[in-house]
Amino acid sequence: MENSKTKITAEVGKQEIFIIREFDAKPELVFQAHTEPDLLVQWMGLENHTMEIATLENKNFGAWRFIHTDESGNSFGFNGVIHETDFAKRIIRTFEFEGLPEKGHVSLEFLNFEALPNDRTKLTTQVIFKSIEDRDAMIQSGMEHGVVDSYNKLDNLLSKR
Amino acid sequence: MENSKTKITAEVGKQEIFIIREFDAKPELVFQAHTEPDLLVQWMGLENHTMEIATLENKNFGAWRFIHTDESGNSFGFNGVIHETDFAKRIIRTFEFEGLPEKGHVSLEFLNFEALPNDRTKLTTQVIFKSIEDRDAMIQSGMEHGVVDSYNKLDNLLSKR
Repeated sequence: MENSKTKITAEVGKQEIFIIREFDAKPELVFQAHTEPDLLVQWMGLENHTMEIATLENKNFGAWRFIHTDESGNSFGFNGVIHETDFAKRIIRTFEFEGLPEKGHVSLEFLNFEALPNDRTKLTTQVIFKSIEDRDAMIQSGMEHGVVDSYNKLDNLLSKR
Repeated sequence: MENSKTKITAEVGKQEIFIIREFDAKPELVFQAHTEPDLLVQWMGLENHTMEIATLENKNFGAWRFIHTDESGNSFGFNGVIHETDFAKRIIRTFEFEGLPEKGHVSLEFLNFEALPNDRTKLTTQVIFKSIEDRDAMIQSGMEHGVVDSYNKLDNLLSKR
């Protein structure tokens, strides 16, 4: 899967995905857009959804919970816990979608912020899943659309700063 | 890898392992042995090591940190955060060995406690790793020895209760 700017790789037989995206801003700014609530709500989620931050403890062993709501008022909750957050460099956190029929389908996300020349950033997100089936269900759910929409909004936000 | 009682499966080309072990005690007891500090220190770790619990917050989004010390006084730290803990049923938590040359090699553990007939328990631990290399390094480090020693000590502890 490759959008003009966002590259998503899901190798056959593996229980992981990689999402690679470059941004025209320094790692410090891209990182802050991921951790400061007033910035995060401006870009994360589908184009026509709103986002509410129920919890966001930006520290090692801190909890997070986000709620996305569509135009019809349907809400989708996500939560997890942060194993490590290292300013402008890395975030490692668990992720669970609350709308699944069964609890326990938790994944682990590794976000790496890498400085590029000309004050640009390469963000690589690796997600490891409990199973290949969990990974493929996430892809089928329209994850790519959500990621592409979000990062386009983030481009827009970063261009204003 | 198969000990008389402990079965460890690491399929070629996968970034996960499964550890399966049955215990002659109810899930409630086996679970408590994993979450109550005074019980945990009696069985977790190699036969000739001692264990100290630096942190153990037995709750969703709670942190943990354990320190194992060998006969020569060398210490080995491990830490992580609990995504979910569900009494006598399940624990989902991150895991990181502090002695690696580089931070960030975090894995995600799923412990499932299943009731068997005759007040027995089947404990299935799935661990998913950042890479196949991370998994294989963990196996090479002598993980099997640690798991087998630990579970034999746990058998002993459970038989006294």
